Amino acid sequence: MSSAQGFLNDWVESRVGLGSNISNSRNTSVSYNIKGCWIPLTDNGGRRSLGSREEQGSVRCRRDEDRLGWFPPHFDVSDRMARLVASDPVFRKDNRAMLSRKELFKNTLRKAAHAWKRIIELRLSEEEASEMRFYVDEPAFTDLHWGMFVPAIKGQGTEEQQQKWLPLAYKMQIIGCYAQTELGHGSNVQGLETTATFDPESDEFSFIWWPGGLGKVSTHAVVYARLITEGQEHGVHGFIVQLRSLDDHMPLPGITVGDIGMKFGTGAYNTMDNGVLRFDNVRIPRNQMLMRVMRVTREGKCVQSNVPRQLIYGTMVYVRQTIVSDASSALSRAVCIATRYSAVRRQFGPQDGGVETQVIDYKTQQSRLFPLLASAYAFRFVGEWLKWLYLDVTQRLQANDFSTLPEAHACTAGLKSLTTSATADAIEECRKLCGGHGYLSSSGLPELFAVYVPACTYEGDNVVLLLQVARFLMKTVSQLGSGKKPVGTTAYMARAEDLLQSRCSVQKAEDWLKPSVILEAFEARAVRMCVACAQSLSKFQNPEEGFLELSADLVEAAIAHCQLIVVSKFIEKLQQDIPGKGVKQQLQILCYIYALNLLHKHLGDFLSTGCITPKQASLANDHLRSLYSKVRPNAIALVDAFNYTDHFLGSVLGRYDGNVYPKLYEEAWKDPLNDSVVPDGYQEYIRPMLKQQLRNARL
Amino acid sequence: MSSAQGFLNDWVESRVGLGSNISNSRNTSVSYNIKGCWIPLTDNGGRRSLGSREEQGSVRCRRDEDRLGWFPPHFDVSDRMARLVASDPVFRKDNRAMLSRKELFKNTLRKAAHAWKRIIELRLSEEEASEMRFYVDEPAFTDLHWGMFVPAIKGQGTEEQQQKWLPLAYKMQIIGCYAQTELGHGSNVQGLETTATFDPESDEFSFIWWPGGLGKVSTHAVVYARLITEGQEHGVHGFIVQLRSLDDHMPLPGITVGDIGMKFGTGAYNTMDNGVLRFDNVRIPRNQMLMRVMRVTREGKCVQSNVPRQLIYGTMVYVRQTIVSDASSALSRAVCIATRYSAVRRQFGPQDGGVETQVIDYKTQQSRLFPLLASAYAFRFVGEWLKWLYLDVTQRLQANDFSTLPEAHACTAGLKSLTTSATADAIEECRKLCGGHGYLSSSGLPELFAVYVPACTYEGDNVVLLLQVARFLMKTVSQLGSGKKPVGTTAYMARAEDLLQSRCSVQKAEDWLKPSVILEAFEARAVRMCVACAQSLSKFQNPEEGFLELSADLVEAAIAHCQLIVVSKFIEKLQQDIPGKGVKQQLQILCYIYALNLLHKHLGDFLSTGCITPKQASLANDHLRSLYSKVRPNAIALVDAFNYTDHFLGSVLGRYDGNVYPKLYEEAWKDPLNDSVVPDGYQEYIRPMLKQQLRNARL
Repeated sequence: MSSAQGFLNDWVESRVGLGSNISNSRNTSVSYNIKGCWIPLTDNGGRRSLGSREEQGSVRCRRDEDRLGWFPPHFDVSDRMARLVASDPVFRKDNRAMLSRKELFKNTLRKAAHAWKRIIELRLSEEEASEMRFYVDEPAFTDLHWGMFVPAIKGQGTEEQQQKWLPLAYKMQIIGCYAQTELGHGSNVQGLETTATFDPESDEFSFIWWPGGLGKVSTHAVVYARLITEGQEHGVHGFIVQLRSLDDHMPLPGITVGDIGMKFGTGAYNTMDNGVLRFDNVRIPRNQMLMRVMRVTREGKCVQSNVPRQLIYGTMVYVRQTIVSDASSALSRAVCIATRYSAVRRQFGPQDGGVETQVIDYKTQQSRLFPLLASAYAFRFVGEWLKWLYLDVTQRLQANDFSTLPEAHACTAGLKSLTTSATADAIEECRKLCGGHGYLSSSGLPELFAVYVPACTYEGDNVVLLLQVARFLMKTVSQLGSGKKPVGTTAYMARAEDLLQSRCSVQKAEDWLKPSVILEAFEARAVRMCVACAQSLSKFQNPEEGFLELSADLVEAAIAHCQLIVVSKFIEKLQQDIPGKGVKQQLQILCYIYALNLLHKHLGDFLSTGCITPKQASLANDHLRSLYSKVRPNAIALVDAFNYTDHFLGSVLGRYDGNVYPKLYEEAWKDPLNDSVVPDGYQEYIRPMLKQQLRNARL
Repeated sequence: MSSAQGFLNDWVESRVGLGSNISNSRNTSVSYNIKGCWIPLTDNGGRRSLGSREEQGSVRCRRDEDRLGWFPPHFDVSDRMARLVASDPVFRKDNRAMLSRKELFKNTLRKAAHAWKRIIELRLSEEEASEMRFYVDEPAFTDLHWGMFVPAIKGQGTEEQQQKWLPLAYKMQIIGCYAQTELGHGSNVQGLETTATFDPESDEFSFIWWPGGLGKVSTHAVVYARLITEGQEHGVHGFIVQLRSLDDHMPLPGITVGDIGMKFGTGAYNTMDNGVLRFDNVRIPRNQMLMRVMRVTREGKCVQSNVPRQLIYGTMVYVRQTIVSDASSALSRAVCIATRYSAVRRQFGPQDGGVETQVIDYKTQQSRLFPLLASAYAFRFVGEWLKWLYLDVTQRLQANDFSTLPEAHACTAGLKSLTTSATADAIEECRKLCGGHGYLSSSGLPELFAVYVPACTYEGDNVVLLLQVARFLMKTVSQLGSGKKPVGTTAYMARAEDLLQSRCSVQKAEDWLKPSVILEAFEARAVRMCVACAQSLSKFQNPEEGFLELSADLVEAAIAHCQLIVVSKFIEKLQQDIPGKGVKQQLQILCYIYALNLLHKHLGDFLSTGCITPKQASLANDHLRSLYSKVRPNAIALVDAFNYTDHFLGSVLGRYDGNVYPKLYEEAWKDPLNDSVVPDGYQEYIRPMLKQQLRNARL
């Protein structure tokens, strides 16, 4: 066995037992870390432009007071992988928009194979491998293999099943995808039409539709279907189904499989083979049902194991937590591009002539851009906190403590919805903030948008998730009188009586600088909206009917609750030990911008529930405006702190060196249309038109 | 001379004198027409689905009571051209997403040549030709030739210049574009770097960037540059510049020209050769400056003509008015797709099992979708009204009456901004309302979004335009005491004193059904926000500084004013003679939905200015919910009334027959990736991975 092979086996070994790797320290408070990439904060009156980077001296140094850190503990890994990918020509991205679908897809296969080769050669750890895939920055079948197929087997397979399938998957001897959506079914998993009948006589057709990696690459899939045995239904379960021959990659008998066609954007998810799959009486061995929670005996009897079904919620918390992290990452990319280009771009001038004004100095630009910058930080911090929440939930599950699960589930569902919707909108807003040039593919923003927006739909449609949150909130409100204490992020509801009465104490703009004032305003708003919904609901004879009728209001109450979570986690963050006074100040400013901008955007909520007065709202607005001036001098440093390579950003407008216009010009000439001065089609279509000879032309 | 040629000359003749074609009737009130395509309204308890179309009997018939019309007087032309395009295989669109950039562009050249050929063969009128291009539905160089190049010469050229250039342009013996944006200059036209120096010694380089049709097709351009003669600047003027040889299409000496590269989306504006252009001491004859307003003599002296400079504002009113029409059209397409698919798609069920619920029956879906449906109608009506406004302005200009020009200019600028921003957001919202399948190219929505969003930036960046509106509003407010009466859409400001004091009279939900109540609430909100801004501005010593500092608030005041215009024009529409009680009822419902949804969205404005109370807001919300139930039974009829062909909609989800799923499945197999069962790249990249042979593979 070669050394690489030997390594691979060790590597696989270390992964099969991965579940126990999770830290065992039972910390109930969150520990935040600020370390990693440090960027000097400046305070030069707001006129620092990108052009003057060199004059500012080194901007990439470490561990100094008054510098701002972004990356979490694994920063070194992350930074190393980012540079590894950026320096490898196989991973180039700048030609994506020019490739045909087939070329694009083949190129992704090449990148995936190359990445895997490098992972083996360099003996990368799982964390490193995962970071590497992140920086390759292209949807690929490997995302589903590692992100869904493997975790499904780990989470839902028995010990035996894990021992059989995981080594194959870890070595990529099989490639798997995750088939849970049908042509006509997305959110309603319980309503899937695919059935798995034990000892079946005949099968109805149903179409699996959407799973990534299914169309062309995967050899196996975890397929979700309603289990039928002894003529009875037993809920939806996962089944490992082999799709293609491991010899020649041809679909196995009874299996029709293909790609579902082009999707949004030029590159985006067109690098991925989202697939359609049809089964025609496909039979699989009984032990390929994932049976950790329930098993089917040889005789076709269903037997529950002693593994709690709630485990599945643990997995959902995990997946949605990573989605919140990804939201923060996508948003910070867009904000980085828009902020840097806003400092490069000039438009209109001072009335006395001279050089035009940097657009970042306009209040209209600031009032749109800086709240997004603040959101990028806010989502980052709430994402870090969710990581802790997942660890906490996991530990409790291991101890058979399910008490916090509903709250944790509602909280992650809500934050998934809130952060992905906000990020999708924000990327498009950043594109608009770049003016016309944001429309060019070379700005990177159109593709960032196209590749990001599915996050609003996958892993739970955002509106459906908010309704789940609302349901949980209504239940919490209804139990307030019963002595059952609301936990975690709903703990504030125990103070409902006070919050329904409380009056905001703000009398002058600076009063909005008190975290407690902001927090109370958001708590009061959320409680009052929830209670109002509960009261409206109580007027319906049939509660389900009422829930449907009032669903739009319920969604708004859920949003109010989720925004409160983000604000409160940002405020908690500020109470941590943050190195450097300057850093702390900047984070405080961002926190206030995040909260006060939300307050302005949802002013109707705050006023209609009487949480604040119109006068207090006006003071908040004045204060918000003054905060924009304070964040302006450090805006570039605040996005530099994200530490993105130019390769990862993939944007001419967001270049680190600010050298935008010459590079835009250079990029333009690379378009295939510029291969020839006179375009293909001139002889057939343009010349006959100009020469008035169209009449006889064959078009 | 052939007969076709003879016709062409007649046709050209009829166009050179086109300016006088405009109706001379001096109607100060708007005349609306409801005729065209009539769709029966139903009232069957909201359960009509697309599947049951046949059972509903004929849905495409005409002129009956209680049927709803959409198209304006030129409906017959429009309908005929839509069908002509839809039935011609050259104009097929469904393969766009699969073409490479070069193929895509060549295909557009082919379509443009074919359309021109058909226009000549069928002796189409200008109106018909324009409708035909509209239904070809693909950005092309002809848009700029007919929409910008020709109008520029007509509007800014002297009689002599028009006689020389227009016949060439009308016959397409030259193809022109419109070059007004530079690499570093969009909105700030006065700051253009391109100079035209009379008798120049040397020229600085500057880059023209973005003009459509410039990159590969145009032989000529109207180039905007700062005129310099006798060492002095004389403002920005248009110059006709020949770019390419009419013999071989090669760029002329001193001219560097090419395409600027890929843009947002798969098809979208990638069908168009937006271009980059560099002049290196290019000389043009003196008489190629467009000299209608100012001419340069042989000696280099500038002489103003007696043609008023304000004429240029007339053109801006015209162009922006067409943009508002286009917004209504794009929005109605997206809404049509989302509404039809919402009736086809089912998700989750009644608790007692059985068939799942159509998603259009969910209140969350209705509260997102129906306001957009209402907006499509609202924008339609305000667009019709703007057509009248343009005629009115034109007639006044001809009579040297400039009194209404600033108001008309502010009004069109504001409505352009309002409707395009709302439409861009709405298309994306419609995409999300289609769930995961909205992400497929075959849904038509990704491309509709990508092709639409530039409207927010071109012809005036939306935020810059709102600031212009705000400036005009501040001026209007400041003159209120001076006896100068505000005109047109600002007339309500004459009642500012009353509106600052007025109290909304609503006491129960039904009170919101009075148009006067709604109107007054919107007027009061707009006036109060404007006055508040004016008061804040007055505190600044330097008004310009104040304007910059408060610009975010000013933008919000401008939006409030523009929303009032749309609401008031919708209400005016309802007061017209509308055939059929059912039609009138449906339009009333849509009008209330449009207004009350805005009220809910901007509740903070209404509450903080004290226009309404929280209790009244809550009643409005209750009422809004009940309106959704009323629009539901007719939702499909209301979008069928747009009368779009399946070809024009270009969406599998929005198909007229509702046969969505089989067609999605069928479409999928057309993707090039499905040409082979085993994908290209398997041997090189997948097999070595599965067989653990990557180590030696060359990737």
